[in-house]
Amino acid sequence: MALFSSLTPVFIAIICILIGVILKKTDGEKEKYETKSKPLSHPWVDEDLKDGTDHHLEEEEWQGPEENVAHVPFSAEHYTEAEMIQRSKMFYELLNKRRSVRFLSDEPVPREVIDNVIRTAGTSPSGAHTEPWTFVVVQDPYLKHKIREIVEEEEEINYKKRMGDRWVNDLKRLRTNWIKEYLDTAPYLILIFKQVYGWLPNGKKKTHYYNEISVSIACGILLAALQVCATSYVRPISHQELTFLLHSVLSDASLPELLLLGGIFRYGKSDK
Amino acid sequence: MALFSSLTPVFIAIICILIGVILKKTDGEKEKYETKSKPLSHPWVDEDLKDGTDHHLEEEEWQGPEENVAHVPFSAEHYTEAEMIQRSKMFYELLNKRRSVRFLSDEPVPREVIDNVIRTAGTSPSGAHTEPWTFVVVQDPYLKHKIREIVEEEEEINYKKRMGDRWVNDLKRLRTNWIKEYLDTAPYLILIFKQVYGWLPNGKKKTHYYNEISVSIACGILLAALQVCATSYVRPISHQELTFLLHSVLSDASLPELLLLGGIFRYGKSDK
Repeated sequence: MALFSSLTPVFIAIICILIGVILKKTDGEKEKYETKSKPLSHPWVDEDLKDGTDHHLEEEEWQGPEENVAHVPFSAEHYTEAEMIQRSKMFYELLNKRRSVRFLSDEPVPREVIDNVIRTAGTSPSGAHTEPWTFVVVQDPYLKHKIREIVEEEEEINYKKRMGDRWVNDLKRLRTNWIKEYLDTAPYLILIFKQVYGWLPNGKKKTHYYNEISVSIACGILLAALQVCATSYVRPISHQELTFLLHSVLSDASLPELLLLGGIFRYGKSDK
Repeated sequence: MALFSSLTPVFIAIICILIGVILKKTDGEKEKYETKSKPLSHPWVDEDLKDGTDHHLEEEEWQGPEENVAHVPFSAEHYTEAEMIQRSKMFYELLNKRRSVRFLSDEPVPREVIDNVIRTAGTSPSGAHTEPWTFVVVQDPYLKHKIREIVEEEEEINYKKRMGDRWVNDLKRLRTNWIKEYLDTAPYLILIFKQVYGWLPNGKKKTHYYNEISVSIACGILLAALQVCATSYVRPISHQELTFLLHSVLSDASLPELLLLGGIFRYGKSDK
């Protein structure tokens, strides 16, 4: 008892230190998340120079745009007010016909059209002109099918395990499920990756500010360009967990993080 | 000494409990951030039904789209391949003329054009068709100037205090500073807010999944629509801290969170 009594402070100290260590550990685990995704706490500046991505600017060598780019004189139309109104109305009517259809035509789309719409998306503005997007076009039926398999496998787990009964019930009305037939049907799949960072000449990472907003704006321009050609795009899925699986299918581990994945198809006779 | 000795375990216990409490407190503070912004850990499902926003679906009553919406038959053009290529090329050439200019014309833009381009942006797809965007157009010179004052005040603090010497040095080359004259010059300011959540009939909050990506895609379509009319948009700033200041200027505290703020202007004779 005397021994116990004299050891009491030691026991208490050990127990308390253990509690401290356990609490600290939990804290550390959360910190990882936080570092990856804490809210925008950095100062906001001129739109061209910032980005919503979490970043630590002080640690980086931020570089401005290349100095050796040739000057392109600015040129623009100057329509009358009546012309402007007419054009804005026509464009609205055209874009208002866009639908997120689920039954796609397999009618071929000229490759030149795909190239042009991606070039158009590439005219999008981006934070500090980083152009943080990578567009991957898949035409090969085998690769399209492999991508479908990956997507469906993950989707099935979602529906059966991850989503919960209420969500699955809600989805019944919309008649969606994990079967993504259109990933085989669409003549092209397009995978849109966001470059969360780039590389400086000295080999250091350079954060791409607001990369997700920039890539999404470019996607909006892509959708507009597709609609102009009477083609469209169905976005079935986007999730970072898929990135690694897709890297392996595409045999390119250097690809950045997946933001959106969809099928490009043509509106037309065989649409339902 | 005997007293001290007998009190030692108590002291140690108190000190250790204090350490534990302090660690727990830090932990709690971080948790707040985490709850607001932890990375996508939810299952991903059909694009129409998910969103990048952090959410706890189980706690919500997710609702599908309204059942009583009239059916709009799908209609679309069907161009020849040559027409498709031609249209995609023309649209690329048109969009490729867009520039993020810094010297704006104050030439009036017809209000009807603004309405049409916003309608066009509103045709954008969105997660679960939540359409989580609010567009606010400001034409009143007094309000425009108030907004400029708010933006410049915050910007000046950024440049002088928050950004650090290196960043400010890098910016010198781009000749940007905290003066945003174009917020007065542009005939219209447009403020684009993201609705992070909506309301259910029972008064509960309903998360808008992927609201930021959805609103950004709509912005891409807005930019395309503006370019079609030879108008454009300069995005000077976006930061959630501004939201509250803008709510007060606009006398509307019910507005959601600011994503982008810019001036709509007309390309033309008086552009530099």
